[in-house]
Amino acid sequence: MIQPARRRVPKRSLPLSKVYGLLEPGPVILLTTSHRGHANVMTMSWHTMLEFEPPLVGCVVSENNLSFTALRLTRQCVINIPTVELAASVVGCGNTSGRRVDKFEAFGLTAAPASLVEPPLVAECYANLECRVADTRLMKRYNFFVLELLKAWIDPRCKDPRTLHHRGYGAFMVAGETLTLPSKMR
Amino acid sequence: MIQPARRRVPKRSLPLSKVYGLLEPGPVILLTTSHRGHANVMTMSWHTMLEFEPPLVGCVVSENNLSFTALRLTRQCVINIPTVELAASVVGCGNTSGRRVDKFEAFGLTAAPASLVEPPLVAECYANLECRVADTRLMKRYNFFVLELLKAWIDPRCKDPRTLHHRGYGAFMVAGETLTLPSKMR
Repeated sequence: MIQPARRRVPKRSLPLSKVYGLLEPGPVILLTTSHRGHANVMTMSWHTMLEFEPPLVGCVVSENNLSFTALRLTRQCVINIPTVELAASVVGCGNTSGRRVDKFEAFGLTAAPASLVEPPLVAECYANLECRVADTRLMKRYNFFVLELLKAWIDPRCKDPRTLHHRGYGAFMVAGETLTLPSKMR
Repeated sequence: MIQPARRRVPKRSLPLSKVYGLLEPGPVILLTTSHRGHANVMTMSWHTMLEFEPPLVGCVVSENNLSFTALRLTRQCVINIPTVELAASVVGCGNTSGRRVDKFEAFGLTAAPASLVEPPLVAECYANLECRVADTRLMKRYNFFVLELLKAWIDPRCKDPRTLHHRGYGAFMVAGETLTLPSKMR
């Protein structure tokens, strides 16, 4: 069993207007769902912002994943954003199925209660975004779900998160320095 | 006028099955379009992979952008992936409109011919992906286009590209080190 470092500092609520800045850089995320009393977590990289406010996110969850059924039926999930300390858990969750493994137990992740949805927050992640499914029109064709972000939590100590960015076959780019240029771009 | 370093090494064709590894990490891209003989380029971060092969990409191009009209009418574009040397050009392209500015001229970018589509490649970018619009069903509601990638070009020298990842208001995370873990995840 992997034992990632636990985050014990309470998280703060983050205004929804700021959430895009967490997802737009393209980090690998851990998606939690809950169905018939069983929580599950999957690793996912195929997501994009669709709207600033209310924040909308589009994401692909393959119909081969247990999470697809949970998402389709319960219409709720949480997007959890891990940093590099959780790399082994991220790969573990991506290589196993919730049909056979309790991934929280197997990969040392703590399920903490969310405020507005049933699926749990992953306590070790630096940010957690509670979501509802808002649109499934491209679900059948591309396994594409449109999510509305309802509530966001962040570890206030984490200013420059060392997020993971998947390059394929377990190769992850780790977030480097931040560069700021004068810009009108939101 | 900004003068970014030019890439003069010829690019190689990249198999389409490998393209996801360039976009999945979430880099800022420069999208080129061409309409009525005028090429344009916009900065964009809202994109996601939708399918491995043939590679499909979903992206948001706001209807306020000149590129929206070009994309809707011509159904062609090129995704160009810049690295940190091009940061000033990336911000410049994001802060101006092709209605008033020739962005190639203003930001020191070279338009090179593509092989299968009309819009040009940005020669200074380390990778260029020629695309056609494959699905516009979510265009009206979310300005969301589904693109099919037809042809990919890459600078073979660039193994660990220092891509830009937008955090908002001109703050860019620059790609750091690459970490590889044993994984079955494609």
